[in-house]
This record gives sequence, C-alpha cells and structure tokens, in this order.
Amino acid sequence: MNSTERRARLRDALIDAADEAIGRDGLTGLKARALAEAVGCALGAIYNVFPDLDALIFEVNARTLKRLDATLGADLPVHDPEAAMLQLALGYHRFTRGDSRHWRAVFAHQLPEGIMPPDWYLALIGRLFRHIEEPLETLVPHLDANARQSLARTLFSAVHGIVSIGLEEKLGSTPDAVIARGLTVMVRAWVAGLPAATGAPVAA
Amino acid sequence: MNSTERRARLRDALIDAADEAIGRDGLTGLKARALAEAVGCALGAIYNVFPDLDALIFEVNARTLKRLDATLGADLPVHDPEAAMLQLALGYHRFTRGDSRHWRAVFAHQLPEGIMPPDWYLALIGRLFRHIEEPLETLVPHLDANARQSLARTLFSAVHGIVSIGLEEKLGSTPDAVIARGLTVMVRAWVAGLPAATGAPVAA
Repeated sequence: MNSTERRARLRDALIDAADEAIGRDGLTGLKARALAEAVGCALGAIYNVFPDLDALIFEVNARTLKRLDATLGADLPVHDPEAAMLQLALGYHRFTRGDSRHWRAVFAHQLPEGIMPPDWYLALIGRLFRHIEEPLETLVPHLDANARQSLARTLFSAVHGIVSIGLEEKLGSTPDAVIARGLTVMVRAWVAGLPAATGAPVAA
Repeated sequence: MNSTERRARLRDALIDAADEAIGRDGLTGLKARALAEAVGCALGAIYNVFPDLDALIFEVNARTLKRLDATLGADLPVHDPEAAMLQLALGYHRFTRGDSRHWRAVFAHQLPEGIMPPDWYLALIGRLFRHIEEPLETLVPHLDANARQSLARTLFSAVHGIVSIGLEEKLGSTPDAVIARGLTVMVRAWVAGLPAATGAPVAA
C-alpha cells in the first residue's frame, strides 16, 4: 500500500468513525482524540488528511444529505405536484425523526463567521432542491428557472421550520401526527394557491 | 426599604443586566459572575431571587416576546387576511433582523431534557399566536378554534423557518429582500389556497 492509498484509507476510516460518533452522541460528541483512538492513528495524523474538524464534519453531513437525496428522490410523481410535494414534505419529516442526530448535525454545524461551506457541499444541497423544483415545473410553469429555484428554497425553509419546531419543542410539545397534518394542509394550500400567488396567467 | 422590596429591586436589576448582556453578546455571553458584578451583589444572591439562570433567561425572553407582541399587534387589519398576514410575516422578519441577539436567545435557550417552559411563559407565546388566529377567523371561518390554533402554529413555524434559514445562512447567503419576497409569495399562496386546503365549503 503506497502513501496515497494509506491516506485514502485513513480518510475513510475517520469519516466512518465520525459518522458513528455523530449518530450516537450528536455533533457535540465529536472529539478529535476519540476519533484518533477509534481508528488507531496519532491525533496529529487527522490533520494530515483533513485541514480541520469542520472539513471532516462536512464529509459526514454530505453522507446524511446523500441518504436524504436517495430517500426523497425514490419514485417521486413529479408530474403530480400535490402528490410529489406531499411525499417530499412527509418524507423529510420522517427522515428527521428516524435519523435525528445526523440531521441535527447538518444544521448545528457552525462555521466561523464569514466562512461558507465548500462549493461541492453547496452543490449537493442544490441537487436536493431539484426534487422540489421538478414538481414546480408542472405547478408554476410560467416562472423562470431562477424564480423556481428561489421558490423551492422558500418552500423547503417553511417545511423545515414546521419540522424543526416540532423537533425542538419550542412552542410546547407537538406530536408527530399533528406536524404531519400541518405539513399536509400547508402543501395543499401551496398547490392550490401558488399559481395565483406567483402571477400565473389565468386559464381561459 | 424592607426585604421584600430589596428582593424585588435586585430581581429587576438582574433582569435588566441580563437583558443588556444578551443584547450585547447573545445568550452565550450570559455569565452569573458578570451579572453579580453588574448589579453589585454577591454571586450567591442571584440564587436567592432566581432558582437558576434558566429562570432569569425566561424573564429576558419574555421581554423580547412582549416587544414582538407590541410590534406585531399594532394596527393589524384583522379583517383583511392577506394584508394582516403579510404585515405579520414581514413584521416578524424585520423584528428578527433588528433585534437578532435577543431573538436568537428565545430560540437558543436550551432547557434540560424533559423540562418544559413555565406556564406563564407558554401563555405569553399563546397570546402571540392570537395575532395569526384573528385573520384566520376571517379566512377559514369553517374551522373550529382548536383547528385554527393548530394552523396558526403551522403558519408561524413556516415563516420562522424562512426567516431563520436566512439568518443562519445554512443554504448559502440569502439577502433580506429575497426572504421578504419569499414570505410575500408564501402568504399570498396561503390566502389563496388555505380555504380549499382546509375543506372550506365551496361558495355558492
């Protein structure tokens, strides 16, 4: 095994160990020393393959986003906007409940002020939004691609808000069934209201 | 000044000092020792008037919620659901931007697992939701009060999600003008779509 292969293997082992630690204890449970012990390397060796722990966290969060992408993208009825958007919203809700520590880590990961996530990571997020943009092509075809992208982000943020406030219980405890009903009403209202709200030409 | 008056005065001074510290440095900037120094009392005296720092934080957050209540409730056109809900959503957005440290403290305040906020604090949150429930009486009069309360929480969570993701820049940077446009489209879609989505009888 040459040094490039050794590095790649250590890199993968560290991502595996960090993935497991976050799934078990959340982002605050991630400690460089424990990771080094888990993979059997020196503490300093971590920083030979990752510039800092933030870079390692992005790799773990990317795995989470890819799992979400695979879950949401499966059999999506993109030409039926209501069915597609209900599947996305309720699928997202289930995902955050089933894998809540990983999911929280995606949002809890704080970067130093002024530092943005790397481009490859933002591209991964962009691919997730495609799932929302596709049914919008059917629902609001009069919007251009930029306006649809912007609308997809707004809709996601709204769903995320509903799902997260339930998760954090900031308004008192909210049962998952109530959240699912809220998401369902919300999506139906969007599908009924978005064409007019975005200035769709009135059907003749 | 008797001991009851002295306690009340210390209590108010501590809330003032904590309010100022949170406005300056956020919730993480709140330290018991610095508060004691600011009001000129012994460290232990804090715990004669508050059981713990959480109780003090609730007092500060209650002030923030009361400011929000006063801002949102002013001249609300409750019988014009679109105008009222636009005013609420955009007013909330402005409030989170103008007083972001106080506002973040309301949501960042983590209680120990299983501990709920005190009833008087939840009642204050309930009063805030009234601002959303009132226009819903005009928009979806076929819903009963419970269903309207639940819908108001869903709508708030959605607006909060849109406003917060902009604040946290998790999806990349989002300018305030884009967020305001997103909120506007969202509210218009609700007003157009909620009657049908909540099963309103079709107008004859």
